[in-house]
Amino acid sequence: MLRTHNNGELRLANVNQTVTLCGWVQRIRDKGGMIWIDLRDRYGITQLMLEEGKTSKEALDIARSLGREFVISATGPVVERLSKNDKIATGDVEVKIESLSILNPAKLPPFLIEDETDGGDDIRMKYRYLDLRRNPVRANLQLRHQVARFTRQYLDDQSFIEVETPVLIKSTPEGARDFVVPSRMNPGEFYALPQSPQTFKQLLMVSGFDRYYQIVKCFRDEDLRADRQPEFTQIDCEMSFIEQEDILQMFEGLARHLFKQVKGIDLESVPRMTYANAMKYYGSDKPDTRFEMKFVELKGEESDLTSGKDFQVFDSAGLVVGIAAKGCAEYTRKQVDELTDFVKRPQVGAKGLVTVRYNTDGSIKSSVDKFYTEEDLKKWVAAFDAEPGDLLLILSGEGDKVRKQLNELRLEMGSRLGLRNSDNYSCLWVVDFPLLEYGEEENRWFAMHHPFTSPKPEDLGYLESGDFGKIRANAYDLVINGVEVGGGSIRIFQKDLQAKMFEVLGFSDEEAKHQFGFLMDAFEYGAPPHGGLAFGFDRLCSLFGGSDSIRDFIAFPKNNSGRDVMIDSPSAIADAQLNELKIKTTV
Amino acid sequence: MLRTHNNGELRLANVNQTVTLCGWVQRIRDKGGMIWIDLRDRYGITQLMLEEGKTSKEALDIARSLGREFVISATGPVVERLSKNDKIATGDVEVKIESLSILNPAKLPPFLIEDETDGGDDIRMKYRYLDLRRNPVRANLQLRHQVARFTRQYLDDQSFIEVETPVLIKSTPEGARDFVVPSRMNPGEFYALPQSPQTFKQLLMVSGFDRYYQIVKCFRDEDLRADRQPEFTQIDCEMSFIEQEDILQMFEGLARHLFKQVKGIDLESVPRMTYANAMKYYGSDKPDTRFEMKFVELKGEESDLTSGKDFQVFDSAGLVVGIAAKGCAEYTRKQVDELTDFVKRPQVGAKGLVTVRYNTDGSIKSSVDKFYTEEDLKKWVAAFDAEPGDLLLILSGEGDKVRKQLNELRLEMGSRLGLRNSDNYSCLWVVDFPLLEYGEEENRWFAMHHPFTSPKPEDLGYLESGDFGKIRANAYDLVINGVEVGGGSIRIFQKDLQAKMFEVLGFSDEEAKHQFGFLMDAFEYGAPPHGGLAFGFDRLCSLFGGSDSIRDFIAFPKNNSGRDVMIDSPSAIADAQLNELKIKTTV
Repeated sequence: MLRTHNNGELRLANVNQTVTLCGWVQRIRDKGGMIWIDLRDRYGITQLMLEEGKTSKEALDIARSLGREFVISATGPVVERLSKNDKIATGDVEVKIESLSILNPAKLPPFLIEDETDGGDDIRMKYRYLDLRRNPVRANLQLRHQVARFTRQYLDDQSFIEVETPVLIKSTPEGARDFVVPSRMNPGEFYALPQSPQTFKQLLMVSGFDRYYQIVKCFRDEDLRADRQPEFTQIDCEMSFIEQEDILQMFEGLARHLFKQVKGIDLESVPRMTYANAMKYYGSDKPDTRFEMKFVELKGEESDLTSGKDFQVFDSAGLVVGIAAKGCAEYTRKQVDELTDFVKRPQVGAKGLVTVRYNTDGSIKSSVDKFYTEEDLKKWVAAFDAEPGDLLLILSGEGDKVRKQLNELRLEMGSRLGLRNSDNYSCLWVVDFPLLEYGEEENRWFAMHHPFTSPKPEDLGYLESGDFGKIRANAYDLVINGVEVGGGSIRIFQKDLQAKMFEVLGFSDEEAKHQFGFLMDAFEYGAPPHGGLAFGFDRLCSLFGGSDSIRDFIAFPKNNSGRDVMIDSPSAIADAQLNELKIKTTV
Repeated sequence: MLRTHNNGELRLANVNQTVTLCGWVQRIRDKGGMIWIDLRDRYGITQLMLEEGKTSKEALDIARSLGREFVISATGPVVERLSKNDKIATGDVEVKIESLSILNPAKLPPFLIEDETDGGDDIRMKYRYLDLRRNPVRANLQLRHQVARFTRQYLDDQSFIEVETPVLIKSTPEGARDFVVPSRMNPGEFYALPQSPQTFKQLLMVSGFDRYYQIVKCFRDEDLRADRQPEFTQIDCEMSFIEQEDILQMFEGLARHLFKQVKGIDLESVPRMTYANAMKYYGSDKPDTRFEMKFVELKGEESDLTSGKDFQVFDSAGLVVGIAAKGCAEYTRKQVDELTDFVKRPQVGAKGLVTVRYNTDGSIKSSVDKFYTEEDLKKWVAAFDAEPGDLLLILSGEGDKVRKQLNELRLEMGSRLGLRNSDNYSCLWVVDFPLLEYGEEENRWFAMHHPFTSPKPEDLGYLESGDFGKIRANAYDLVINGVEVGGGSIRIFQKDLQAKMFEVLGFSDEEAKHQFGFLMDAFEYGAPPHGGLAFGFDRLCSLFGGSDSIRDFIAFPKNNSGRDVMIDSPSAIADAQLNELKIKTTV
């Protein structure tokens, strides 16, 4: 090794040892004949010291020629520091330099290599290798490594086998858009990159692998957003001879293990909520349960506390629903106006907001006092189980649409009230998803999860009767802090039922056979009952890291146009390559 | 769980417990009113028992309707067996069935699901999910999981961080052919799939990651052979602030750990051999050192024991070189003829073979007695350090060509003499590879390893003088049993040297900048000395599994045409897909 120690390990016990350190120059101070250099590597920072008159002139000259981020090697004895630095682990000591050499000089970096940098997003992505030098970014990737490591530890202990499934597979029309790869050896034909190893893991169950997992890259050629990347990583799992309950317990165990090992948090038992209740009480299939603030219906299927008072807006609405914001009765007019503006934003889409202040003195004041008496409003307050000081925020409209609007408002209020701290974690299983959803545009049914998801046995009658919208699936999502972290289902393992599903989804027999014939065949040769799930690994890491952006947890991410601006990819390729592949571009 | 136990865990201690087992029917015997069913899963086989008159008629009827590979569930008490089976772990007990149900019937499989199957390669690949049910195939993938697990264990303990590098990268002209992926969002442009994460791991060193690894899929669009797959897996590693010696020791440590954990073998220290000596003594840069049988030169740079005796073949040859096959002096004429035929095969390409029998009685008899006296032959025998009973096998011709021929013959003799047992392991570091090799066809120099490999400092003069063929690289291969399992190098980390290398390789400044500008830039911002290596993971697994074929260690391999015959991929894709990608096929 070019070094005897790294920059994070010297302590008082090393005093008087002669050591050689290597690393990057973080900072240099040259004052009163003394020079101090902070030398950095992945493991920490160690202070080097040179002294006019004592250190050799050669070393002093080299030290004075150094710039930030130079790569150097330094040798000398470890000495105790006079003024200790308790902010760094090596702060009790410094190295009194006897010799110094430059391993590689460095140009001035285009942005500061510090925890707080002056570099904007674009420049940091172009020089990602410099951005990765910064502690917070490197810490994210170290966290990622730990999450992977503890995931494997848990699954290995539970007799899961990691099996690598192929990356060059076959394009399928269902689901998101595939990336494709032209085959040179089979001209005119294409591989596809997997959106997930779904069918392969099911085949592994047919093979009797019993418990499979894989931490695996997946690919989707979709338009990108902040939290989407064209290539992303999944923790992909499958088990045989199980029921839904077994899966929930097994992977609640994984979550518990990760929280304990990675964050030092003892996770309580994860509550469960049906999809129907999640929509009813939170207007979302991934409610943020770090805070309560459940929806209360003033007018709906079970109650009506608003009609017949000449308030047209509510009278014409199918649903009047709201939330109670604790302690917000004192909001100023301006604050309430902000909320009204918030719900009217196109992303939310509400027409207006009705507010009711339940003041601390017990009085009630609403924005619809023209229509409703204090007696009416008292009933509302009672329905909300509100306390003095609460502000009721009420939206109206039609069913799921208004629920989704109120979900946005609820999350906004959670943020305003400081209830969405990224250091707090709240996990939830959402269960009993609908099996199918109707695509109005396409005029056909789509699988909500994927075509291999099993209907609940008690809902099989609806499959026969054609009430497809009523069929619930044995499907489940793990939601943490309002983020869908994982999801899965019990699978269909009977050939006839799978064929029926393809039929419902509008596949002709021929199409089903062409696309998934191998799976249908496999089901004829002894397929066990099985099910599984997949976690979004990038997202899981970002949650543990307390960030909204998965990009921060990917070493070399792509931008919103799918470009890697560092290596400048994608790029044009040579005509010779295109000719060999027997394709041409039509741009 | 649908079962209380798996099929590998019941013991005498479980007797009298009522258990439920699930699995596949391996075998049924119905004899004298008794029915025995061997129930199989990944964990083992358990015997189920039913008895006419005691077991319910319903269960008996179901049992009699079962076929091989049916998936069933069976419940009943565990009882001690009268005649125990010591070949299986559960052989002391059986389960006395009270109820039995069919979870999924199975068609008769197209080949026997037994350790020895009657299925040919093609049918087994088409029904790979059935082939994977067979114990030896499943064991291979379990071994693969273990090798990965212990690799991670070792590298994690050594402070390596696993970092995922991108799969959608940029096509580069150097090296093998890339698979490419058209970009929909950037029409006319393409990603490439990585042949290795080489440049990314070097950038991670520039980022200060210090120790990186990744078990990662790589891709090469090359014509396929038995031991090549278009997608394969590497254990990819890189370290900073190290010299070659550090890498050799670190990864010898990994090899030692794997041999111990996976095979229970204590690996001795791995010897080293220069490339020059490997070629001189074994005619190969990956000698099989499970056996000695080193080359001996009768005529070469240092000696000439053959010239001037009117034997034209030897007189006109630049090199006369042979091996001594222990105890083969007694080979029959037929056996010797076989060897002559062997060396004349087009794959070997020799013109003929000269043999010398050093008989046990001390007499010497050769196929060239016409030209050489016993006195001459005695000198040969002495040069070979041969013992009575040995057979000398001698080839002649020009330099490396004849050495490669003799390498083939040596391996053949090793096999014939039983010296290449796959249960024996011999590891070797081959070091000091040439940096560059000349491509006669292309009329230019190529990097033997890759363009980022560092020349030995003492050979830098040849880079200036233009004696490119003389430059040795800080490059090394790990060879096990004659198979190149891993290889790597110390990298260039200085911008100027890297630019010089690209120049030698015939890159224009512009090309170098276009292809590797980001790396050259990175070298300006403080790149540390670094180096690394990669192991061929599939090959490593096949070695540990005692097989020549990497395919046996890949769950879903492709055939020699790059096809997955199970899922029928690659395949044609829809015109709509091509249109969106702005490409068209020209087949």
